[in-house]
Amino acid sequence: MQMGHTLNGFTQEGGYLHPVEPWRLTEHAFDPGSSVLNETLFALGNGYVGLRGTHEEGFTGHGYRSLDGTYLNGFYESDDIQYPEPAYGFARHQQFMLNVPNAKVVRLYLDGDPFSLLLGVIEQYERWVDFREGVLHRFIIWRSPGGKRLQITSRRLVSFTHKHLFALDYEVKLLDGPAGIRLASVLNGMVSNLETGDDPRVGTAVSGPRLQLAAAQITGKVMTQTHRTQHSGFMLVSAVHTECAFDGAGTLDSEEERIRQRLEQRFSAQMQAGETMRLTKFSAYCTSRDFPEDRVLAEARAALDEGHSTGFSALCSEQREYLAAFWRQADVEIAGDDAVQQGIRFNQFHLLQSVGRDGKTNIAAKGLTGEGYAGHYFWDSETYVFPFFLFTKPDVARSMLQFRYEGLGQARDRACEVARSCRPVTGEDPDPAIGALYPWRTIGGEECSAYFPAGTAQYHINADIAYSIKMYEEATGDTAFIMSQGAEIVIQTARIWMDIGCYVAKRGGCFCIHEVTGPDEYSALVNNNYYTNAMAKLHLLYASELAARLREREPDAFRTLAERIHLRSDEPAEWLRAAELMYLPRDEELQIHPQDDSFLYKERWNFDGAAEDVGPLLLHYHPLVIYRYQVCKQADVILALLLLGQWFDLEDKRRDFDYYEAVTTHDSSLSACIFGIVAAEIGYRDKAYDYFMATARLDLDDTHGNTETGVHTAAMAGTWMGVVYGFAGMRLQDGTLRFAPYLPETWTHYQFNVRFHGELLRVHVDRGQTVYTLLEGDALSFLHWDRAIRLRGRGTAEAVVETPSRHGDSSGPSGQEAGGAQSSETGD
Amino acid sequence: MQMGHTLNGFTQEGGYLHPVEPWRLTEHAFDPGSSVLNETLFALGNGYVGLRGTHEEGFTGHGYRSLDGTYLNGFYESDDIQYPEPAYGFARHQQFMLNVPNAKVVRLYLDGDPFSLLLGVIEQYERWVDFREGVLHRFIIWRSPGGKRLQITSRRLVSFTHKHLFALDYEVKLLDGPAGIRLASVLNGMVSNLETGDDPRVGTAVSGPRLQLAAAQITGKVMTQTHRTQHSGFMLVSAVHTECAFDGAGTLDSEEERIRQRLEQRFSAQMQAGETMRLTKFSAYCTSRDFPEDRVLAEARAALDEGHSTGFSALCSEQREYLAAFWRQADVEIAGDDAVQQGIRFNQFHLLQSVGRDGKTNIAAKGLTGEGYAGHYFWDSETYVFPFFLFTKPDVARSMLQFRYEGLGQARDRACEVARSCRPVTGEDPDPAIGALYPWRTIGGEECSAYFPAGTAQYHINADIAYSIKMYEEATGDTAFIMSQGAEIVIQTARIWMDIGCYVAKRGGCFCIHEVTGPDEYSALVNNNYYTNAMAKLHLLYASELAARLREREPDAFRTLAERIHLRSDEPAEWLRAAELMYLPRDEELQIHPQDDSFLYKERWNFDGAAEDVGPLLLHYHPLVIYRYQVCKQADVILALLLLGQWFDLEDKRRDFDYYEAVTTHDSSLSACIFGIVAAEIGYRDKAYDYFMATARLDLDDTHGNTETGVHTAAMAGTWMGVVYGFAGMRLQDGTLRFAPYLPETWTHYQFNVRFHGELLRVHVDRGQTVYTLLEGDALSFLHWDRAIRLRGRGTAEAVVETPSRHGDSSGPSGQEAGGAQSSETGD
Repeated sequence: MQMGHTLNGFTQEGGYLHPVEPWRLTEHAFDPGSSVLNETLFALGNGYVGLRGTHEEGFTGHGYRSLDGTYLNGFYESDDIQYPEPAYGFARHQQFMLNVPNAKVVRLYLDGDPFSLLLGVIEQYERWVDFREGVLHRFIIWRSPGGKRLQITSRRLVSFTHKHLFALDYEVKLLDGPAGIRLASVLNGMVSNLETGDDPRVGTAVSGPRLQLAAAQITGKVMTQTHRTQHSGFMLVSAVHTECAFDGAGTLDSEEERIRQRLEQRFSAQMQAGETMRLTKFSAYCTSRDFPEDRVLAEARAALDEGHSTGFSALCSEQREYLAAFWRQADVEIAGDDAVQQGIRFNQFHLLQSVGRDGKTNIAAKGLTGEGYAGHYFWDSETYVFPFFLFTKPDVARSMLQFRYEGLGQARDRACEVARSCRPVTGEDPDPAIGALYPWRTIGGEECSAYFPAGTAQYHINADIAYSIKMYEEATGDTAFIMSQGAEIVIQTARIWMDIGCYVAKRGGCFCIHEVTGPDEYSALVNNNYYTNAMAKLHLLYASELAARLREREPDAFRTLAERIHLRSDEPAEWLRAAELMYLPRDEELQIHPQDDSFLYKERWNFDGAAEDVGPLLLHYHPLVIYRYQVCKQADVILALLLLGQWFDLEDKRRDFDYYEAVTTHDSSLSACIFGIVAAEIGYRDKAYDYFMATARLDLDDTHGNTETGVHTAAMAGTWMGVVYGFAGMRLQDGTLRFAPYLPETWTHYQFNVRFHGELLRVHVDRGQTVYTLLEGDALSFLHWDRAIRLRGRGTAEAVVETPSRHGDSSGPSGQEAGGAQSSETGD
Repeated sequence: MQMGHTLNGFTQEGGYLHPVEPWRLTEHAFDPGSSVLNETLFALGNGYVGLRGTHEEGFTGHGYRSLDGTYLNGFYESDDIQYPEPAYGFARHQQFMLNVPNAKVVRLYLDGDPFSLLLGVIEQYERWVDFREGVLHRFIIWRSPGGKRLQITSRRLVSFTHKHLFALDYEVKLLDGPAGIRLASVLNGMVSNLETGDDPRVGTAVSGPRLQLAAAQITGKVMTQTHRTQHSGFMLVSAVHTECAFDGAGTLDSEEERIRQRLEQRFSAQMQAGETMRLTKFSAYCTSRDFPEDRVLAEARAALDEGHSTGFSALCSEQREYLAAFWRQADVEIAGDDAVQQGIRFNQFHLLQSVGRDGKTNIAAKGLTGEGYAGHYFWDSETYVFPFFLFTKPDVARSMLQFRYEGLGQARDRACEVARSCRPVTGEDPDPAIGALYPWRTIGGEECSAYFPAGTAQYHINADIAYSIKMYEEATGDTAFIMSQGAEIVIQTARIWMDIGCYVAKRGGCFCIHEVTGPDEYSALVNNNYYTNAMAKLHLLYASELAARLREREPDAFRTLAERIHLRSDEPAEWLRAAELMYLPRDEELQIHPQDDSFLYKERWNFDGAAEDVGPLLLHYHPLVIYRYQVCKQADVILALLLLGQWFDLEDKRRDFDYYEAVTTHDSSLSACIFGIVAAEIGYRDKAYDYFMATARLDLDDTHGNTETGVHTAAMAGTWMGVVYGFAGMRLQDGTLRFAPYLPETWTHYQFNVRFHGELLRVHVDRGQTVYTLLEGDALSFLHWDRAIRLRGRGTAEAVVETPSRHGDSSGPSGQEAGGAQSSETGD
């Protein structure tokens, strides 16, 4: 019990929904109205199993909502997509993350009456998760409608160290005896998914239960259910091992019950005041995505055995050790603003809980906390989440790329469906040199976007993945991965640009890319989307460079690859030519980069009054109306300024920023963080701070109003980028790491670690100086603004340099050494 | 019996599916493989009731297909549209033309065994419809599997003079007696619609029976069924009155049977050789779209009574009289090519059979002959079919416009959903000056397009309707209609351009229209589609002119209208300004009109080899691929050249024609006729003839391969335009009628009539001269090429002028008087 600590002192401040605490999220009173939101915020996960933070006893009725759910990363059902007006090449199958059997249910009865948070009187209540513990605690003192008090103490964890396992410990202490107490451990297979309405961001277009029960049994302490999906062909075993301990003088009775798909083990006793009964559940999920079908059941039982033989307390210890290692690498410390501190740690904790790390899964837009966007993976993975892991847990970053490599066959199939050069009319075999087109949204690797103008048309997904591979190579030096898998992805995805692009005489022979949708989904099916063209250019350059490198250094591997993918010897030169001639226009009048060929010709959206404050335009206007205006849902050109910053000077960036900021609604949660980072770079420090703040607590404060259906993983990662890319100005360009840090005015310092080529660098920025410390590794070179710094010797190597102070809104030296006087370098 | 005539002489020629006959369509042998196509070709209709040409006995089994169907114009069921990814403003409800109870069924049994076209031996077979009769005949001599012969003679008509009525007469003569003969008159309510597959052109996205039976009874000679639709809220009564006549010596027995929704009246007798039994069925359909619910049943019975009291023969006479009057106005006579002659008359006959003429209905893309496109009305009505009726049966043309007036309220509601100025976010009432946006596809007036890029985005529907109203005014002088209804449509629809258009500084302040789809559906969501902008210009000019005229001539009516639609006094001036500044670009390099802002920047489709010959691109490529290329499904700029010909000179037209012809696939059946007309105008006479021929027998020869699911009404009307607008060069511009006729080389003459301001003009073109004869009316002025001709005196007034002979491919004088020497004018 940690009550003394957790009930101590924190109160809700500044209109926040929860107390501001640097390492914890706490709920001091039970508010049924915000329960569905708290189910998301208190969700637990380990990148494979995800549990919404629903109370063990459930929570329904009385007009309050609960969206309970248990999810397994990568475990999905599929369905045919029914189009009211179908057309050739439209994505055929939907996939959606399934809600799997609920193994966390505990029922508690006092003298035969069920305990419920909505009955009786809750005399004390607290629920909390400490980000260093990874355990969800709840402490309740409850007075039943009959007047007897119970103390209920529960803990729950999803094990970071055992992929398939979660465990919970539920202790009841009778305060006013005597009374009959019954505890039931439940495994409930009657689950279904949340149905989406007109808001595409909410859930899944599927109704009713979708798992088919194949077997269910209770054997000793173990309950198991075997289910099959109807269309995706997967098998799932859900298993629970229950222990019940009773310290009282009476007799503990137990019984079992099976009502259709609901299995129960019940324990009851006549208890005296002061006696306790404790239920410990170890639960495991295993599926045929991880094991051969004939081994799934055995693996689930093995995971259970591992769990209960380890024991709940030891699992908690393992959890704490795992998190200690994580925070040692990943923690961002912010002094001077506890609300931000809480927000960023909450976000990092959820990223860790959400990201798949087995090479077969990735990170869903809502992680494992809800069914929004059907549990799909998007470009969010590469463009937002990937950098966080790349610089803090590169093994996870590699695993994310591995997921893409696993999907390369499907991406090639998709290219065959939608590429011009496939020539389906002829009935000939598709061009073997077709390349690969990654799905805009997927779980299992197949394109699941049912609205292609804001789906398949976002070809930039290919470049986003290639960009990540380039970053991965530069940040890790892991050439083995590049040579064995990365290069093939980069080359296959690069080929798509040659299929969809062309040289246009009317553009001076430039290479143009038509009929695509860029990141900004408030324009669709445009020509020469700036972001897409610019990213394609980088992609083509990298592909041709990689091909040359591979040919030179690994001639045998290259030959094998070239044969397999029918790579012609002249292709790399074609890529280079297209890259060099890539059309990247600049409007001479406005001196900005047009988002696409038509963007600057369109009328600007008239933001008259507060009319649009009620929510995203997409919920209030037909796409035709939105597409017709200069109005952006999110960063598009601005994202190119960040990712390809070396191609623009500061004045370019300022003009683009000014222009696009005025026409951007930030209706996408992916937007504010990018604007904030670029604002920091161009010296718009107030704006940088405001944008950062808009992201830092987006879910904690539910600022987008839809966190109840899941957290926003991309925005969460955007917070980390906001500090590291934004305030600290970190960039990795052409292999060189550079920092350009400053300290936001209201903070006293901030500090984070960066892993680079295996070394671990701590960056500590305070008002006057920035201190770089090499925590692991032998030597590291980087730039501080434009000053080259080289640290040698592990642990103690440190450079102390000046942090530029604010001078006007356009601070932030470019090509200027800001510090230097107090800088030093130490060797070992 | 007309066997002597109909079996006489005609044989199938030139690879045609049927004999070439100028006034008839005949089938000389029963071919089960082409039966489903013939069901379409032999379909009957009167603009309200439509019957597919299925045999009375049905036709199923043995691997052959039948798509039986009975349709009522404007009678539909609706359904919610389910989008896999919904968005704001997407059309909410689907509508589809229902297959209604089948009242034409007759069953014939010989000694208890059913007659079937697929059993026994068909010794003689002929089926034909004469376009002057409007009666479908069938004559069969059949030898039963048992060896007895029957002669079966049936006739069927859908009455042009009784909207709700159809009738059939079915006579059986026993040739080898004796035998037991039974005839059954059936009314079968177990009907459902054809399900569409992936081809959007085929049918209806609905499965299973959709009519709910409310009542069914047999009373005396009358069988009735009352059905209700589930969602659209309509009531339908299907009623049959059956007479049976038997000339034999035996006894005629009769009995009734009702099996669920199948009602039968059976008549049987033991017959001797030479005896006959005759069944006559009068059938009526009435719905609550035409009558109050409590009167529907009575109206159906009244229609039956009207039918059988008139009698089958008299109905045939009425039919013949009606058609005589029609052909007197509408016939196009072509000498020198009987195949073309047959094609054009077949087409005109089907147009008459398909078009609604009650002001509440219109003409479906497939008429009443099949369920393709769900029975929807499109712009085809105004842009293709309307001119035919305008110049031959202007009462029908007016009725078609009346249909649009009836839908003005729904068009206003739709504008409220999709217009920017509605400002749904504020929750305020929509701007009352919002205007109207007509549905791209509909039956009942609501937008039913479930793929907005090729649906709602085709804003040009508004201009197409306004253009028709302008033509109607100029061709009829019916100012009463314009003042009472037309002006309101024109003004309300014009307002949409102000909502979606804007003045663009980068285009020199021109008025631009963004994010629309033009007629060519192989580009979508483009900016400044040439056709749309040009038609909007004309529309805005006409609207401002009409407003001024109405204000001046009908000030009270104008004030009432202005108040009702909140017309601001400055709006007409705004329309004029937008029209004058309308962006209508011309590419200086190519000297052509670009189809849209981006069209000329795109890569041209590479038609390498015969790869694309297998069918429309849309069935073989993802829309993104098609949209990315310079490739047109159909006429777009070329259609503007036709409809707005006065704005272009011949050289303009030739260059545009040359350019767009090379990139057009004519995958739309709306394309070839337009290219043909413009080819004729610019002197490309060979091409003009080829394009005309591609349209003239499109359905008769099933050249698009999908006539089995219905005829192509727009293309059918395109044939008429091909002669009148094409070869005869007729144009109506700013009130002036002009002809510029020539004679295709293989023809000896052609002749057609044009009704203009109530007068009826015959135009007869032969090799040397063109003869204009005023058949009705007092005086008529028009141009022959650029020569003014005025005819005075009815019946005999005649002008004989020279028909220009061919001189090279660029014949066709412009601003040159070609004839003259032999011209004359006569007064009365």
